[in-house]
Amino acid sequence: MRDPILLTPGPLTTSLATKTAMLHDYGSWDADFNRLTASVCQQLLAIIDPADDEFVCVPLQGSGTFAVEAAIGSLLPKDGKLLVLVNGAYGKRMAQLTQMMGRACAVLDAGETEAIDTEQLRSYLAAHPEISHVGVIYVETSTGILNPLQQIADIVHASGRRLIIDAMSAFGALPLNSRSLRFDAVIASSNKCLEGVPGMGFVLARRSALMEAEGNSHSLSLDLHQQWTYMQRTGQWRYTPPTHVVAALASALEQYQQAGAQAGRLARYQQLCDHLLQGLQRLGLRSFLPAEIQAPIIVTVHAPAHPHWNFQQFYALVKQRGYILYPGKLTEVESFRIGCIGAIQAADLDGALAAIADALAQMGIPQEQ
Amino acid sequence: MRDPILLTPGPLTTSLATKTAMLHDYGSWDADFNRLTASVCQQLLAIIDPADDEFVCVPLQGSGTFAVEAAIGSLLPKDGKLLVLVNGAYGKRMAQLTQMMGRACAVLDAGETEAIDTEQLRSYLAAHPEISHVGVIYVETSTGILNPLQQIADIVHASGRRLIIDAMSAFGALPLNSRSLRFDAVIASSNKCLEGVPGMGFVLARRSALMEAEGNSHSLSLDLHQQWTYMQRTGQWRYTPPTHVVAALASALEQYQQAGAQAGRLARYQQLCDHLLQGLQRLGLRSFLPAEIQAPIIVTVHAPAHPHWNFQQFYALVKQRGYILYPGKLTEVESFRIGCIGAIQAADLDGALAAIADALAQMGIPQEQ
Ligand SMILES: Cc1ncc(COP(=O)(O)O)c(C=O)c1O
Ligand SMILES: Cc1ncc(COP(=O)(O)O)c(C=O)c1O
Repeated sequence: MRDPILLTPGPLTTSLATKTAMLHDYGSWDADFNRLTASVCQQLLAIIDPADDEFVCVPLQGSGTFAVEAAIGSLLPKDGKLLVLVNGAYGKRMAQLTQMMGRACAVLDAGETEAIDTEQLRSYLAAHPEISHVGVIYVETSTGILNPLQQIADIVHASGRRLIIDAMSAFGALPLNSRSLRFDAVIASSNKCLEGVPGMGFVLARRSALMEAEGNSHSLSLDLHQQWTYMQRTGQWRYTPPTHVVAALASALEQYQQAGAQAGRLARYQQLCDHLLQGLQRLGLRSFLPAEIQAPIIVTVHAPAHPHWNFQQFYALVKQRGYILYPGKLTEVESFRIGCIGAIQAADLDGALAAIADALAQMGIPQEQ
Repeated sequence: MRDPILLTPGPLTTSLATKTAMLHDYGSWDADFNRLTASVCQQLLAIIDPADDEFVCVPLQGSGTFAVEAAIGSLLPKDGKLLVLVNGAYGKRMAQLTQMMGRACAVLDAGETEAIDTEQLRSYLAAHPEISHVGVIYVETSTGILNPLQQIADIVHASGRRLIIDAMSAFGALPLNSRSLRFDAVIASSNKCLEGVPGMGFVLARRSALMEAEGNSHSLSLDLHQQWTYMQRTGQWRYTPPTHVVAALASALEQYQQAGAQAGRLARYQQLCDHLLQGLQRLGLRSFLPAEIQAPIIVTVHAPAHPHWNFQQFYALVKQRGYILYPGKLTEVESFRIGCIGAIQAADLDGALAAIADALAQMGIPQEQ
């Protein structure tokens, strides 16, 4: 049987071309590999379309969280204070890691079902001059909420603060142009909308902000300034890079360009998401978010209100049919999630929807209407 | 042409079986992947042959340095003090990362050409009661020096201190048995003697020491205690794991068992190293270390004392013939390095030696005698 299709927010189903790029061993010190790294960095930068030398790309070993921690620890001065805009698990995590590294941190918490309130942000910043930086999650993957990034960036910029964007599950698909959007850093990883494999993150940082970051970091491994200066000097990663993961990302980016880059990716994901939402509706399953704040990345679905509902069993039955779903992350509402990103097509979603219908029938849960 | 053979201390040449294990996408939340992680951890633990539940395995995303930093940051109490035994770049790095996280740290520096002096260690510990932990590099990869681990462990244990071992380039090949050697943690990574691909490290920690580690870490991403408790509770990695790297390591470990585990690996590497040393001698090239402290992992070679010597050119010529060497790391002596680990055999070393001879001839450097 084929491998199950991953309908998750990453790691996700990658193309065979991306995976076969990992069938080579590269010397981490070698010029061939340095070229691969340079090409990846240059393509990642191109996605935010920077003017001249305004931004630099700093790749980092580890998962996306490592890159978020590295960005905050390096870009937030030791006497700075970060305001984190929270509406889900990843915003909470950004605040948690900031506190753990001993930096000052405040939180504006919008709950877990609504987008960030920009008016509240504006007045908070006016009332709290000690805030130097603002952190935001572009798509809060724990629900799929799309935050109003343009308005947030405008407010932060107008108030003279600096913005750090966790765009983990948005980067490469949702618009993020450094000419129209003012920010100091955007953080993402290899294994979401770029459709690479997991094992590295990266930070696209404003050069001037990164140049001021020397000596800020609480951690050697997570010091973006050192990682960047070393790479500038040598063309190499500072410590052993995940060579196969980098090779896979280089291949994934080549496919990304061929498929129309950000506009192409967004169009495909939007189609997949619409297809999924329609299919769910036909099955009588209700998606959780209002359409205005539903990012075309991952859909949170209300669990059927039926005594037979049991996520573990449902998951196992759908998996038997070849599809991997994702558990919900809402604290008050019983839910599950279905990702619509990765090297998948509408037919895969049809297959998954059929598997979901079968599973519910087998569990004795009738389709609501 | 075939891919170049990597004669480096890792990333190194892996088997095709190891690489093809990466041709599958796993859901990081799924039971199939959790089983893979559990099996990897259990096999890593078996290498140190622990009694009962005495040790636990905590895998960590990122390169080996991330795992070293995580081990120190988690296991060293905030008011502890680490003595690092330094005889090369990796010892220095352990001290640097300890200082950067704001912990107390002292260094016993033995230069870069000799093994750690155990008598000096004994008297230092007697004179410095504030030292709570000792950090040591098993094989100092910057030269290939084998440190006297058994004596060091005995002294540290007898003095009531705790030992943390960076066994990055030794683990899986050199003996490391928790029944005969007393330590609190050993740190290594996927991509050296285990012959996996790079992208994850791991710490084998004494359970009692890890249980006391709650709240010590300076970093969320690098908090071993949290990584472990989360994995214990869920069977999953705390943040997105490098799924393909884990799959490659699982395959590499299977091959490792089939090839006689640690004893088998050591025997093969010892043969390769002897073969390499003999071949270098035939070419009139002198290895740097005395035989007693030469680990069978990587050989440092004196650069020929000839005006035409130029490492970049030499490297390029040898690479053209299909072999990737490694630069030296000695500060005072011009040198280069040749690794003898990875999925390679004696014939590959013969090929490399012939390429080296050709390159030197082409550079107009006669064979010394
Ligand atoms: C918005 C966001 N931030 C951070 C992360 C953390 O990334 P990782 O799991 O790779 O550490 C994720 C992962 O899904 C995410 O969606
Ligand atoms: C002894 C030792 N410690 C630490 C490291 C660092 O590992 P990494 O480059 O994976 O961060 C190495 C790498 O060669 C090593 O040999």
